[in-house]
Amino acid sequence: MSEPSPIITLTTDFGIRDTYVGIMKGVILGINPNVQVVDLTHAVPPQDIYEAAFSIYAVHNYFPKGTIHVIVVDPGVGSDRRAIACQTDNASFVCPDNGVLSYLLQSTEDEEAQSINAVEIQNKAYHLPEVSNTFHGRDIFAPVAAHLSLGVPLADIGPPVQMLVQLPIQAPELSGNTLTGQIVKIDGFGNAITNISENAIADLESASTGEISAYEIRIGSVRLNRFNRAYAESGVGKPLAIIGSSGLLEIAINSGSADKQLGLKRGDVIVIRKVGKSCQKI
Amino acid sequence: MSEPSPIITLTTDFGIRDTYVGIMKGVILGINPNVQVVDLTHAVPPQDIYEAAFSIYAVHNYFPKGTIHVIVVDPGVGSDRRAIACQTDNASFVCPDNGVLSYLLQSTEDEEAQSINAVEIQNKAYHLPEVSNTFHGRDIFAPVAAHLSLGVPLADIGPPVQMLVQLPIQAPELSGNTLTGQIVKIDGFGNAITNISENAIADLESASTGEISAYEIRIGSVRLNRFNRAYAESGVGKPLAIIGSSGLLEIAINSGSADKQLGLKRGDVIVIRKVGKSCQKI
Amino acid sequence: MSEPSPIITLTTDFGIRDTYVGIMKGVILGINPNVQVVDLTHAVPPQDIYEAAFSIYAVHNYFPKGTIHVIVVDPGVGSDRRAIACQTDNASFVCPDNGVLSYLLQSTEDEEAQSINAVEIQNKAYHLPEVSNTFHGRDIFAPVAAHLSLGVPLADIGPPVQMLVQLPIQAPELSGNTLTGQIVKIDGFGNAITNISENAIADLESASTGEISAYEIRIGSVRLNRFNRAYAESGVGKPLAIIGSSGLLEIAINSGSADKQLGLKRGDVIVIRKVGKSCQKI
Repeated sequence: MSEPSPIITLTTDFGIRDTYVGIMKGVILGINPNVQVVDLTHAVPPQDIYEAAFSIYAVHNYFPKGTIHVIVVDPGVGSDRRAIACQTDNASFVCPDNGVLSYLLQSTEDEEAQSINAVEIQNKAYHLPEVSNTFHGRDIFAPVAAHLSLGVPLADIGPPVQMLVQLPIQAPELSGNTLTGQIVKIDGFGNAITNISENAIADLESASTGEISAYEIRIGSVRLNRFNRAYAESGVGKPLAIIGSSGLLEIAINSGSADKQLGLKRGDVIVIRKVGKSCQKI
Repeated sequence: MSEPSPIITLTTDFGIRDTYVGIMKGVILGINPNVQVVDLTHAVPPQDIYEAAFSIYAVHNYFPKGTIHVIVVDPGVGSDRRAIACQTDNASFVCPDNGVLSYLLQSTEDEEAQSINAVEIQNKAYHLPEVSNTFHGRDIFAPVAAHLSLGVPLADIGPPVQMLVQLPIQAPELSGNTLTGQIVKIDGFGNAITNISENAIADLESASTGEISAYEIRIGSVRLNRFNRAYAESGVGKPLAIIGSSGLLEIAINSGSADKQLGLKRGDVIVIRKVGKSCQKI
Repeated sequence: MSEPSPIITLTTDFGIRDTYVGIMKGVILGINPNVQVVDLTHAVPPQDIYEAAFSIYAVHNYFPKGTIHVIVVDPGVGSDRRAIACQTDNASFVCPDNGVLSYLLQSTEDEEAQSINAVEIQNKAYHLPEVSNTFHGRDIFAPVAAHLSLGVPLADIGPPVQMLVQLPIQAPELSGNTLTGQIVKIDGFGNAITNISENAIADLESASTGEISAYEIRIGSVRLNRFNRAYAESGVGKPLAIIGSSGLLEIAINSGSADKQLGLKRGDVIVIRKVGKSCQKI
């Protein structure tokens, strides 16, 4: 038995109108009454694997070593998609093998992704006695996570899996003086989070051609010419570009919603160009 | 003192905009700091006793023995409706006596319902010192549940009650080759959950008149001729009939909302007819 | 080290679509795995400091001594607004110094407000190693609260602060036979909660001029002539005035929404007049 873990997180598209999330907690606490169950979010848009993948990627580093993350965004439930349990040095992940770990696996900055061990969930001893075709969150993922939290070794859950399903994740591209990225998530404040990290902007900065330079940021109808350091730096109702809390560039509106006011949506392209001081006019 | 229980669940129509649920948790943890409080749902439609009754019925079996369920959907708060605490072999229920236990009590498959002990909550020693007319969830139900979780015997809470308020719950009816049921809940995915259990369909199957047979399922404008085993079996956007996670027949739309796309609502009638192979055309 | 506390509550405007709340819990549990984290609400309207101030004021008395309340409604995050930690005999508060404690501090009935000790959060040993400009809930408030829950003394968090930012809070005014107040919150049921306490109504009662008297309650287009003791006392769909669960006068509609049906909103004026029996017609 490896060392027991005290935290299980839940990320689902179940919403909170129904009792589905509560049922999963009942199943977990029935197996391990001492675990702490933490809701990450249950408002992943229905069957939106991309958003679930981004959410768990952005969050997992803030939980203590040994945390077990359960992700149930599972349009293929009842089909032949695999159910998997994975472990890195820091965390475990229990989920369908449908791409919900894509951001995590493709993050080149994330060494955990390299050390991941994955198994297919097959050992029925760790399922509920009856397994439905429609709610593996309750019947498979919750009990497997609870058993892992009791110290059951990953190898007992099922046989190793080599290749996990991965969604195509767009990475920002740097070409000359131009960095091109995409919006990957609109958050609840209406902030548009891009896939452009602080490091990517530093790379653009290094790709210098002129001496004194400024930035031109274009997204939809918005033109900005600098990065802000706080929402409050911009006038109320004005758009701004800022490195957000997940270390990624966000387009936000001070005391407003970039989503609603600018009509931004996931997939929209953002272009950042380094321009000479002389041609800074935009 | 009976054995202490570690889990209290909450089912209310309070929503989560306000702090009412948080206040109940504060009251509970002030009495028993070691209990785990689990939200089942706080999105029961305002004062919808039927939906609360269905929710607690569908959920309670997934919690460990000894769990205490608090249900506060209470349009009669401050009137002379009784407050009750009940125990079965597996669980306790603390709630107004307004029918929120109806599904639980009327389930013929549920032996717990037969063994239920109920008392009227009268012993003010287990209330908050001041009891309002508008928030018994905080002043009565939460503290009583917390004291029960510490091992206070049911008999200390108040005198026995024989007859509990029960709402009329419609059961499906089998007549010849035809099974007629109703929608009992629309869930957050827009799935229409009926009162037709897997067993009821097996009974229809047994009520055979021809040799080779098929099914005709009619609800609203929808006609289906088979039961599916997974959402993914149906084409995207197509309706299907499936035994859902609570063991009841659901009308769903693969990757869609049966609620919005088919206009289904609680109370709508569903008719399942067994037809001879020769007259399978529908 | 003072005595460790087991409960941390969270009050934010983060909503529950995103994982921001879950991240704060991860940070807290990473520092103190034994704390109970309780959500008060995450549905404070974005950047609505007044509503956050009212919420924490109305709730804090229902939590056990030693509870630590974290309030993150923080439009000035990243600017030079101070971050503070405060302690009274009963509770601790960790929040931006932007007025979110105003109701608590200005409550003349609340002795805690007099005994409050406040410090500016400056000791970086109790922050996360990297502090962003946009998410102090995660980087500063959550870890400081977790360290306080482990028993870190307030004085270690930073230097004392004398004057805290306070919003102007309107108090009800009694003039002759007339008591004038305001709506301070619309709750999720659509009840309009005023700043008129049971005590203020008792004061109006004492300010008697005639012998036999009645009340006239005016708000918007509504005229009422009595206080109710239970929602159910009024006809379904009828407005009523009732002392709500927070000890304040509410305008409600039995089985309805005063908010939607009467168009009431925060700041609306309510006038209660004591009238002679002879002029009771209203």
